[in-house]
Amino acid sequence: MNRIKCTISYDGTLFAGFQSQPDQRTVQGEVEKALKRIHKGSEIKIQASGRTDATVHAYGQVIHFDSPLAIPSRNWIQALNSSLPMDVVVKDVEAVSEGFHARYDVTSKEYRYRVLRSKERDVFSRAYAFHYPYSLNYEEMRESLQYLIGTHDFTSFCSMKTDKENKVRTIYEIDFFEENDELVFRFIGSGFLYNMVRILVGTLLEVGRGKINSLDVKKILEQKKRENVGKTAPGHGLYLWRVTYDN
Amino acid sequence: MNRIKCTISYDGTLFAGFQSQPDQRTVQGEVEKALKRIHKGSEIKIQASGRTDATVHAYGQVIHFDSPLAIPSRNWIQALNSSLPMDVVVKDVEAVSEGFHARYDVTSKEYRYRVLRSKERDVFSRAYAFHYPYSLNYEEMRESLQYLIGTHDFTSFCSMKTDKENKVRTIYEIDFFEENDELVFRFIGSGFLYNMVRILVGTLLEVGRGKINSLDVKKILEQKKRENVGKTAPGHGLYLWRVTYDN
Repeated sequence: MNRIKCTISYDGTLFAGFQSQPDQRTVQGEVEKALKRIHKGSEIKIQASGRTDATVHAYGQVIHFDSPLAIPSRNWIQALNSSLPMDVVVKDVEAVSEGFHARYDVTSKEYRYRVLRSKERDVFSRAYAFHYPYSLNYEEMRESLQYLIGTHDFTSFCSMKTDKENKVRTIYEIDFFEENDELVFRFIGSGFLYNMVRILVGTLLEVGRGKINSLDVKKILEQKKRENVGKTAPGHGLYLWRVTYDN
Repeated sequence: MNRIKCTISYDGTLFAGFQSQPDQRTVQGEVEKALKRIHKGSEIKIQASGRTDATVHAYGQVIHFDSPLAIPSRNWIQALNSSLPMDVVVKDVEAVSEGFHARYDVTSKEYRYRVLRSKERDVFSRAYAFHYPYSLNYEEMRESLQYLIGTHDFTSFCSMKTDKENKVRTIYEIDFFEENDELVFRFIGSGFLYNMVRILVGTLLEVGRGKINSLDVKKILEQKKRENVGKTAPGHGLYLWRVTYDN
């Protein structure tokens, strides 16, 4: 068997999320359908670095699978892309050792979140950025980042729907910058809890509008209770941007 | 009655084109539905600078309509945008004299056409740029522009489905530039025939690939026959960018 690592990109708009679900259109479902076609009817299961929710996009999700076929990387890309629907694309393929695992071997993940700041909405980014036309205090937002970066118990910033016991994660970097009419957030960390990036964005936007201040963010983190925190920003502004592995 | 001029933007993906058609979702249909709601059930007809086809986008289409309501421009924008679906937005509203006409008073129009040049397709621009991953000879393409710019009979570059008798139009400017992974064409002219921009783009891309050369473009124009020319580039790369009026 050959273990194949693929970097894929998808537009989350028309998917019920990454993970297979009965009677739902999912990214996993579409990729496994393409693999089944390439393997003449044999089922091939894929493993991803993690799930993404409905409407959430991926610029660089990573998956792996095992195949009895010995195909050069270049041809894997062609074979997969001609079998996949237009909202999923394989960007890179690499043959890896059988010890590699797309989920267990992750060393860090980067997420980005796009916020459209223009007064009027924009038809072309309606599924790709969260429209938030309010004035924001960037200085106060920046002030609150120091409390979030580092190793913390992020219970306050995790959806209560999670099944994870251990809520300790390390955030290496949070950053935001302007790009045209947008504010783009970058989060790099060892891993993120369920809805964590979207809750962090929702909270940082409330800091920006002056509903809470940076010291409140510190307190919220210390309280370890989900209910004290701001809204979860919508999924369509979120991108799984990059997954990093040792090698 | 108050004559109102609106600049609107729409994502053409889910429309059967601009113009109303029975049992089809159209831009005109959606805007007139919003106006009917604002006018408590009275029908208000709109006039546009021109039609656009299915899947074609507008960054700055211009329309006008007459209303008995005396509403400040700012409030028109709000009223319309809260009634319109997410793929149409009003960007600007201006009260104009009753002599103004969105179609008859046009002095020039700008269209843009986005071509994605990356090797692999991109999921996020699949409905917004034409994927054309071939190498292009920009110099030869530039060479052919001199034959197209100016006042000509553009019969060779007009769909045979047109109902226009006079095929003479003036192109003031054609230009192309790179932007990230894309090649963007700009066309500015007095007006354009049916499918003319898409046929010009299809032809210029054939010049770029070396299937024809710049002198062939000159000959094709002089022959005044549609059948001699290259493919019509797909609608989803095309944007009605700006409409200009004297004032």
